[in-house]
Amino acid sequence: MRTAASSARFARRTARLRASTIREMLKVTQQPDVISFGGGLPAPELFPTTEIAQATKRVMEEYGTAALQYSVTEGIPQMRAWVAHRLAPRFARLIPAEDVLIVNGSQQGLDLLGKIFIDPGDHVVLESPSYLGAIQAFDAYEARYLTVETDENGLIPESLERVLDRADPFPKFLYLVPNFQNPTGRTLVRDRREQVVRICERYDLPIIEDDPYCELRFEGEDLPPLSALETSGTIIYLGTGSKIVAPGMRVAWLVIPNADVREKIVLAKQGSDLHSGTITQYVFHEYVRSNAFEEHVHEIVATYRHRRDVMCEALSEHAPRSVSFNRPQGGMFLWVRAAGADTAELLKVSAQERVVFVPGESFYPARDVHDGMRLNFSNSPDERIRIGIERLCRAIEEA
Amino acid sequence: MRTAASSARFARRTARLRASTIREMLKVTQQPDVISFGGGLPAPELFPTTEIAQATKRVMEEYGTAALQYSVTEGIPQMRAWVAHRLAPRFARLIPAEDVLIVNGSQQGLDLLGKIFIDPGDHVVLESPSYLGAIQAFDAYEARYLTVETDENGLIPESLERVLDRADPFPKFLYLVPNFQNPTGRTLVRDRREQVVRICERYDLPIIEDDPYCELRFEGEDLPPLSALETSGTIIYLGTGSKIVAPGMRVAWLVIPNADVREKIVLAKQGSDLHSGTITQYVFHEYVRSNAFEEHVHEIVATYRHRRDVMCEALSEHAPRSVSFNRPQGGMFLWVRAAGADTAELLKVSAQERVVFVPGESFYPARDVHDGMRLNFSNSPDERIRIGIERLCRAIEEA
Repeated sequence: MRTAASSARFARRTARLRASTIREMLKVTQQPDVISFGGGLPAPELFPTTEIAQATKRVMEEYGTAALQYSVTEGIPQMRAWVAHRLAPRFARLIPAEDVLIVNGSQQGLDLLGKIFIDPGDHVVLESPSYLGAIQAFDAYEARYLTVETDENGLIPESLERVLDRADPFPKFLYLVPNFQNPTGRTLVRDRREQVVRICERYDLPIIEDDPYCELRFEGEDLPPLSALETSGTIIYLGTGSKIVAPGMRVAWLVIPNADVREKIVLAKQGSDLHSGTITQYVFHEYVRSNAFEEHVHEIVATYRHRRDVMCEALSEHAPRSVSFNRPQGGMFLWVRAAGADTAELLKVSAQERVVFVPGESFYPARDVHDGMRLNFSNSPDERIRIGIERLCRAIEEA
Repeated sequence: MRTAASSARFARRTARLRASTIREMLKVTQQPDVISFGGGLPAPELFPTTEIAQATKRVMEEYGTAALQYSVTEGIPQMRAWVAHRLAPRFARLIPAEDVLIVNGSQQGLDLLGKIFIDPGDHVVLESPSYLGAIQAFDAYEARYLTVETDENGLIPESLERVLDRADPFPKFLYLVPNFQNPTGRTLVRDRREQVVRICERYDLPIIEDDPYCELRFEGEDLPPLSALETSGTIIYLGTGSKIVAPGMRVAWLVIPNADVREKIVLAKQGSDLHSGTITQYVFHEYVRSNAFEEHVHEIVATYRHRRDVMCEALSEHAPRSVSFNRPQGGMFLWVRAAGADTAELLKVSAQERVVFVPGESFYPARDVHDGMRLNFSNSPDERIRIGIERLCRAIEEA
């Protein structure tokens, strides 16, 4: 087939996906006895398999034909109502169910947002570092990136202000992960949330608040999402069932108070895949309204808290002095810095030691910071965490 | 929020979706006592609800954790192997399972193909009329259309040749539905299939063969898909579980012999939604490998054949002389022409008579043919078909 047949833009747009370190790493992970801290996978042994089978049986008995038929692009009404109800206490206000749209995992939410907001060359504001999946989604629309400095307390408001002040052309939105950020595990502190919202309102800049881990808090108090602090209805909130039920169901949601933006997302999704799986939405809803679901979330939180502790202890014990790491209050990742190291190079050594992680440079749009690494603690049992960290620390000393 | 915040291209790209007659019509359909021949919906009373519940139970017991976890973008190996095996007799050759990719319904397949092939302004060749969902998917990438004439035997090869001979710029692909076409119900006859493949091979033009209805043949012999007649590996085949199991599962597939095109589709899907629902793929596979599935397909075919007969009889009995219609050998639609009428106007009258359909102009990229209408016969029981056709014929006489 003539190469000319395919799209020239597509080649440019997927440069980063093609080069994806993660894809390469996944090949290594297939090998037996390799311990992976690389993926962002939940603990599979906790999946509610029996409950999902039972929920499916009830759904088939009660709504069988509707659950197997085509359905509306926005999502089934029950799911939209459940999301609105679940988030209302966090948002500290009633959320109209019509503000909620159901998508195939957060990745689709990010893709659709890219589709409706970004023209080639447009600016988007990101935290530095930022979530890789978001960068890949926005790359597909040929975005350019403005980055805001961060520290242990998350995005630095003064840096955001400086970036917006100088931005030309003015950016389309700010994208951030306020709780237990991917990749750093950091949480944006309360007073900064307030400041970020006020700055964006002053500049009339929409915010995309991606909050996949909010229910995975191990300690400390829940902080209000930015969506709870705004007064102008310009924040788009993303949530997901992937971390609290199961990623294999591909059930996630957007909360979009602005009717115009919401309508555009619906049109974009209609052209992309008509609607999300009807049966998975019904089954998800049937499961999450049970008491078993609440217990399940508690069990996930307790397990991940323990695994974070195991990983932090193992790092304290084995890491050379050049290494620093944080102790996130929730989520699935911690962030390690190996002073002076290039962790993309380190990965080659550590893969030989049979342990892998995601090198930090993947999370910087310009790929210009090289000493970070993202470690996932949710997907490995205690003993594998200990062995994996020992191997990793050996690799760091070798490299 | 500033309107300037959203993408200028997006506004252009969704012009057709915004204006979609189908969306407007669906509002009317919500009203009680309106009979709809408009949608492309399967008969819900035939959905295998009990079997899907049982299949889910078996999947949760046997592969519970894998079925709920993240999975690969290409689709689960079992599904890819099943599709390859199922299609092999039609293709009259072995199909490597790696040629098969699983997507969220055919609509996502069309969207991804648009994404990798079409740059703004590129030409795409369509049958006239052509499937609306495909036009909408390609519109999103700002395609322009070249149309090929058709008759009762499908696309006319000489017309295709003339179009390709004059095309400038040369088109990216030919898109067609060879069996029981949407909207016309027509089937491309055997010798024309051969001719179309040879013409496209001579011009080195990829073909997208969209074949959602191939298993819904009521009578006559199966014809080989174009994919079975090619020698150069440039045909991309689309199939779906929506018509033989259930659309609410969103399980469909692409067969792509060309490795370069396949890799691009995988990259595009990775950025769009990572992967299709893992659990629905497992459950779909568990169901379709049972004997119950084969019986189910027979039952669907028998039911739809009968409904086609009921619709044809009612039309014969009630239609005024200005009306002609066909008797498709399979699928879900028949095509009615009301000489001299504008069926978009007719729809307003017929909606008052409480019956709706899709006006033909939606299926012509230039919206320049106005006397056709697409009637769906799969979704209504006998009595509603009879009453609906009576109402429709009354509306035609009124208009």
